[in-house]
Amino acid sequence: MIFASIITIGDELLIGQVVDTNSAWMARELNSNGIWLKRRVAVGDNKSDIVKALEEESRDAQIILITGGLGPTADDITKPVLCEFFNGKMIIDEEALQNVKTIFSKLSNRPILERNLKQAEVPDTCTVIQNKRGTAPGMWFEKEGKIYVSMPGVPHEMQGMMTDQVLPGLAGYFKTPYILHRTLLTAGVGESVLAEHIQDWESGLPTSIKLAYLPNYGMVRLRLTGTSENKVQLSDELDQQFEKLRTLVNEWLVIDKDQNLQQVVAALLKEKNKTLATAESCTGGYIAHLLTADPGASLFYKGGIVSYDNEVKEKVLKVNHQTLITEGAVSEETVKQMVQGALLELETDYAVAVSGIMGPDGGSEEKPVGTVWAAAGTREKIQTQKFHFRFNRQRNIELTANYALNLLRKLILEEN
Amino acid sequence: MIFASIITIGDELLIGQVVDTNSAWMARELNSNGIWLKRRVAVGDNKSDIVKALEEESRDAQIILITGGLGPTADDITKPVLCEFFNGKMIIDEEALQNVKTIFSKLSNRPILERNLKQAEVPDTCTVIQNKRGTAPGMWFEKEGKIYVSMPGVPHEMQGMMTDQVLPGLAGYFKTPYILHRTLLTAGVGESVLAEHIQDWESGLPTSIKLAYLPNYGMVRLRLTGTSENKVQLSDELDQQFEKLRTLVNEWLVIDKDQNLQQVVAALLKEKNKTLATAESCTGGYIAHLLTADPGASLFYKGGIVSYDNEVKEKVLKVNHQTLITEGAVSEETVKQMVQGALLELETDYAVAVSGIMGPDGGSEEKPVGTVWAAAGTREKIQTQKFHFRFNRQRNIELTANYALNLLRKLILEEN
Repeated sequence: MIFASIITIGDELLIGQVVDTNSAWMARELNSNGIWLKRRVAVGDNKSDIVKALEEESRDAQIILITGGLGPTADDITKPVLCEFFNGKMIIDEEALQNVKTIFSKLSNRPILERNLKQAEVPDTCTVIQNKRGTAPGMWFEKEGKIYVSMPGVPHEMQGMMTDQVLPGLAGYFKTPYILHRTLLTAGVGESVLAEHIQDWESGLPTSIKLAYLPNYGMVRLRLTGTSENKVQLSDELDQQFEKLRTLVNEWLVIDKDQNLQQVVAALLKEKNKTLATAESCTGGYIAHLLTADPGASLFYKGGIVSYDNEVKEKVLKVNHQTLITEGAVSEETVKQMVQGALLELETDYAVAVSGIMGPDGGSEEKPVGTVWAAAGTREKIQTQKFHFRFNRQRNIELTANYALNLLRKLILEEN
Repeated sequence: MIFASIITIGDELLIGQVVDTNSAWMARELNSNGIWLKRRVAVGDNKSDIVKALEEESRDAQIILITGGLGPTADDITKPVLCEFFNGKMIIDEEALQNVKTIFSKLSNRPILERNLKQAEVPDTCTVIQNKRGTAPGMWFEKEGKIYVSMPGVPHEMQGMMTDQVLPGLAGYFKTPYILHRTLLTAGVGESVLAEHIQDWESGLPTSIKLAYLPNYGMVRLRLTGTSENKVQLSDELDQQFEKLRTLVNEWLVIDKDQNLQQVVAALLKEKNKTLATAESCTGGYIAHLLTADPGASLFYKGGIVSYDNEVKEKVLKVNHQTLITEGAVSEETVKQMVQGALLELETDYAVAVSGIMGPDGGSEEKPVGTVWAAAGTREKIQTQKFHFRFNRQRNIELTANYALNLLRKLILEEN
């Protein structure tokens, strides 16, 4: 088994200024390349903390991936610390220098500064990883059979280096086992009930296969992970166990792939060659955003109305004025009319609509914060559902979007 | 100085299944409570890795916050590991048991299982932190003058415990120094140029005040952080330095507060009592989502049209058919007409519109992936801007949204 560790460097991570999305991306890539991430550590822009992390992480891992602290400003100290740690001295890398100059000549309005040119300096003990997307080069060090790679913290720069150079380099250096996954998504059942339901099967799993419960947005993802030297045998064994699992959880099964709900909906609509419109009040465009996050959305998604204000519900979605007065904006009748309005206005086969109170304010005794009405429909049939979420605004928005998409998914399946 | 370390437990973090948003939230809260987060570590659901992390992190930190691994399923082993680490034995906590039963009685359709009841078990060496939002209780341990707190990984459960019990508890246990921040946001200038521009001032900063450069979405946030026992003196000193910084960067200044662009736009519109509509093509609702993420959006945001398909641009936003054919959907004329259509259709004072090619497909020689036209306007005046982003789809969407909001911000300021 080849183990890796990620060291993320930057004070901004320790004061909570930024959410670290790099580590999850790197973890996924390592994992699908047969490398097991053992630990992730974040430390500040501080020499002794960086050195301590390098020493500690190299004890249990053969691969140490380092991101951050390579910028041109005074708080970025990763490069000099690595230079000293690997007993090097700084030299100018000509290719990296040319890269800095090229990038600055493209951004013609910015003068090139001494501190920008210094980005082309690297320790002479590293192999330089050229950065095609930015000015800071990456660095590959080898020491006592272990690999250390330093990359910028800017996500697309790091991702480009990992994909183009680091992962192929690691695959060439280490003989990695195969790690394979099989994932399915369930809805409408809790983690404990699922666990109870599949416990006999779970306890009979071979040691080479592990099961993970991954609950999110009111759904539970189940993933089998297998590790082996023998890819064919592992794949067969995983398929057999996965089929058993699939059968066991069939009543709650959303999809037997590693897809999220919007991807499932997108695949169904594309398969049937049908179009979709959204009509969102409380989610404020979040459902539309989810549906358009992946490329190819234009094949099924025509567009949507964010009817945050009741005037927009009336004027654009043609919701009845009287309905808004007597039933209120958060009502079954309103979301039904929103679906009808969206179908008509955007000329689609399907529409999904939501209206609710996301909080923290705006609740009443009758309709407390978290009350949501959702509807999904065609010209022939509209289905509605009422929810009551008890979380903060952001999570209420996310849950509303997911439950509405699930309502839509079930409707599309019924229409078969 | 009081140091803390966060240990996040869960295999899902090491295979990249989930992005860890808890740590950033906890870091912010600790920081504003005068506690400096020294390190963050993520380990798997594995006894020896958890124990090693507990030992290592307690060497340099007085506070060790642990999240995750408290669920009811077999892969959750944090509680037994902590029980052994703190030499305890498991006992039932009556209040936690009552809590589990109450939660299950509310979710009437779920049977209560033995494994759910076991969530009320805690080591007898801890002080129980009751969980008002879920079934797994938190645990507070003290050992050799250090505090260890174990909390669930579910964000809103953890946040509730931190706010209600953990942070007040830590403030009572440790005498913490004051940590204060002053933050401003700049646009239209790179990190290096900024650094060059303010280097004399920066090098003269007292040791108690640190400067951080936080670039994101083409903007750079600058933050001063001061640490002291004397709050009044620190606050004065920070204010003085912040005023100097503000003056130095004035030409690029967006706001001298810790706000993001959508919050700045929201504040401007609310102050002027003006309304806004969005007309989005390529961002697919993301601008609307940003504007409605904070509560109170209904005070200025009436709604928006996601005109993903050209038919929607024509039918709902009244973009000229001929314009779409001759100029194309990604053109200055189209986004101008989208602004006009949104102003008319949604009856607002301002509108912002974007149309572009987010990738990875859909580019052409003339209009490569990353080409974006944005417009912001009123009935009297429309301003447009063309961009060319060179990133992946997600980042192109984020950048488009931010640059469009900045265009809108500048227009609103001009309208004074």
